[in-house]
Amino acid sequence: MGIYDIIPRMKNILYAQSGGVTAVINASACGVIETARANSDNIGKVFAAKNGIIGVLKEELIDTSLESDAAIAALKHTPGGAFGSCRYKLKSIEENKAEYERLIEVLAAHDIGVFMYNGGGDSADTAHKISQVGEKLGYPVQCIGIPKTIDNDLPVTDTCPGFGSAAKYVATSIREASYDIAAMASSSTKVFVMEVMGRHAGWLAAAGGLAREQDADGPHIILFPERAFDKAAFLNKVSAAVKQYGFCSIVVSEGVKDQDGKFLSDNGVRDAFGHAQLGGVAPTIAQLIKQELDLKYHWAVLDYLQRSARHLASQTDVDQAYAVGKAAVEYAIAGKNAVMPVIVRESDAPYKWHIGEAKLADLANVEKMMPANFISEDGFGITQACRDYMLPLIQGEAYPPFINGLPAYVKLKNELCKKIVEETNYASR
Amino acid sequence: MGIYDIIPRMKNILYAQSGGVTAVINASACGVIETARANSDNIGKVFAAKNGIIGVLKEELIDTSLESDAAIAALKHTPGGAFGSCRYKLKSIEENKAEYERLIEVLAAHDIGVFMYNGGGDSADTAHKISQVGEKLGYPVQCIGIPKTIDNDLPVTDTCPGFGSAAKYVATSIREASYDIAAMASSSTKVFVMEVMGRHAGWLAAAGGLAREQDADGPHIILFPERAFDKAAFLNKVSAAVKQYGFCSIVVSEGVKDQDGKFLSDNGVRDAFGHAQLGGVAPTIAQLIKQELDLKYHWAVLDYLQRSARHLASQTDVDQAYAVGKAAVEYAIAGKNAVMPVIVRESDAPYKWHIGEAKLADLANVEKMMPANFISEDGFGITQACRDYMLPLIQGEAYPPFINGLPAYVKLKNELCKKIVEETNYASR
Repeated sequence: MGIYDIIPRMKNILYAQSGGVTAVINASACGVIETARANSDNIGKVFAAKNGIIGVLKEELIDTSLESDAAIAALKHTPGGAFGSCRYKLKSIEENKAEYERLIEVLAAHDIGVFMYNGGGDSADTAHKISQVGEKLGYPVQCIGIPKTIDNDLPVTDTCPGFGSAAKYVATSIREASYDIAAMASSSTKVFVMEVMGRHAGWLAAAGGLAREQDADGPHIILFPERAFDKAAFLNKVSAAVKQYGFCSIVVSEGVKDQDGKFLSDNGVRDAFGHAQLGGVAPTIAQLIKQELDLKYHWAVLDYLQRSARHLASQTDVDQAYAVGKAAVEYAIAGKNAVMPVIVRESDAPYKWHIGEAKLADLANVEKMMPANFISEDGFGITQACRDYMLPLIQGEAYPPFINGLPAYVKLKNELCKKIVEETNYASR
Repeated sequence: MGIYDIIPRMKNILYAQSGGVTAVINASACGVIETARANSDNIGKVFAAKNGIIGVLKEELIDTSLESDAAIAALKHTPGGAFGSCRYKLKSIEENKAEYERLIEVLAAHDIGVFMYNGGGDSADTAHKISQVGEKLGYPVQCIGIPKTIDNDLPVTDTCPGFGSAAKYVATSIREASYDIAAMASSSTKVFVMEVMGRHAGWLAAAGGLAREQDADGPHIILFPERAFDKAAFLNKVSAAVKQYGFCSIVVSEGVKDQDGKFLSDNGVRDAFGHAQLGGVAPTIAQLIKQELDLKYHWAVLDYLQRSARHLASQTDVDQAYAVGKAAVEYAIAGKNAVMPVIVRESDAPYKWHIGEAKLADLANVEKMMPANFISEDGFGITQACRDYMLPLIQGEAYPPFINGLPAYVKLKNELCKKIVEETNYASR
């Protein structure tokens, strides 16, 4: 290039995390920032919203250029959400136009040409709307979604970054607990119940089924939110497993409902003050087994551990999380708008995939449920089709570095930019 | 040796696992069997009791010589109890002399000269008694204990194999969950409660404290069974953490008691039928925080996962578990009786240790509690003395091999020897 070439105005990127975090959402952030740094001819700064979209409304923007290359690289192996996430869904434009205007105002003030929203279906919807509003307000901003959710419920994409690692952790955990109870069952505990996340769809519960390679292996029973709880059939199945294998190992989704569509975890238990019981469908199922079959039980509830267990992340998942972050920057450079990079599967075995381009409009607010043919006929297990789909997603062990016996995760400096927009009612949120 | 040398009668070993299994009890079994195989000049077969001492009473003895070297080597990375364990405490000799006589009868029938009992304080007591009874009945048997328990409550030994791996898992898990909640706290969950095992002593709860390297790191609060639950002080501490760090991360021992010495998990909650609530002190604590401070919470219960998570075992722990198994065979060859190999600490940093010899009588039925100076003054954290003690025990990552995305654990053939003792009343247990 000659020295007289016009230097194009650099686009800054604003990256925000949304909703429940995962073991690999920071790997996507790493992909975004590293790719932007490698393309400093085309991209300006990467700002990150503090605590997601709320940080944009409050004009709390983190200047990631102040972080070292080493710190950014370490995001690839750090769980949680490095800049903070939030549970905050923007209202519709009709209901709260001022909120969108405020967003555009903040983006414009910081020369942000690209907004990247790393989340699930809600986030795709929000990013899509911001793209439309910017256009109308005369400040067009490229909006690019980056997929993320352990729930694996986004359409179009083969899988959602975050799911593969959670699935690997769930399957490993129920395998290990099943080895434990198998040793104890002759004289002690006969039933183990492990509760996993998934209020609407049984993807993570199904992942537990990957641990079962032979009939005797746990889990012997999976309870899916897709199937109404059939108490009699369930208890029969527990009895049969204990009779045949000596013990029964169970994975239950938090979203399991009874025949009337009521969550099993809301079992009417009340404390002395009339407060609802403390939650957890695993203890409910365990107690039922005790009452009806008089079998000794143990139960575990994974909760946040299943989505933060970066120590056991799937290499495939980490690679894909990084790849969608990287692709988002490439889309930004190519001038794309209202799109999301997604995972496209080419084949199951060997698993081959590439990044494809999807429209945000096609992903917004659509939940992908498990295919009916992933659940076995009796409703308590997974099929070969399910295994074929899921096994590739848990391949490879992407261990983090350990220091002094514990995983060494990074904490960023997260220094905020100076606020330059006049304070509004959003500033005090 | 000349051909006229007298070939000594080979001692067979009977190895049995006892009580709750761990991530590394099979590593001790591996140490026993591999060392016996390497000393086939001095040691006959290694039998393993099926399901612990019950298997001896029922004369269900597994012939480990039928297992391949590869299968035995794989025990070193396999959780659970490969031959089955049991919760069964022998009565005193006075109460049930016949039971001891039956044991000796079975040992004698299979030419067993050495009985190895891999367990905690109860098992040390049992092994000690069997040694005394054998002597009296004219069939002296060398009884050798092998230490094991995630509870870390055996005296004499520096630590108990099984504890270090559970501690590493607990500390890693609360670190990871703390990263998660830190990202969510601004607009959602503010408190995370993780329940760990330890009904009588807070060793595992204390291990959670290793994750906290800076003030802001979780866990901010540990609830120990050693300290009566002080509701007001606890709630103040939760509020303070949320105010200062934005969130509060808590580790609670299942054994926490109120001021009257009653388990907190027994909180009087009853279902519609008057049955006691479903257990779990984590949900109890979480509910308390919701009621008193109105903070959004999440909770997890680790249960069996913390003692079976072989995928995150401590290399130090695996080494020690193997070493006590190996030493047990060396003691057997040396003709020792009523002893247990234990871990002797030489220094904290660098951590140096060797195997020492302890008398079973000194270990039997004695519980080692946490030193008072391991708990911080306010009762909610650990001290530097505790860190200095514990950190060495979680060092090193002894990853198992993975196949197809999941840890590859071994299942033995576990073929039983032919029964040769006349059936007695114990045979039908």
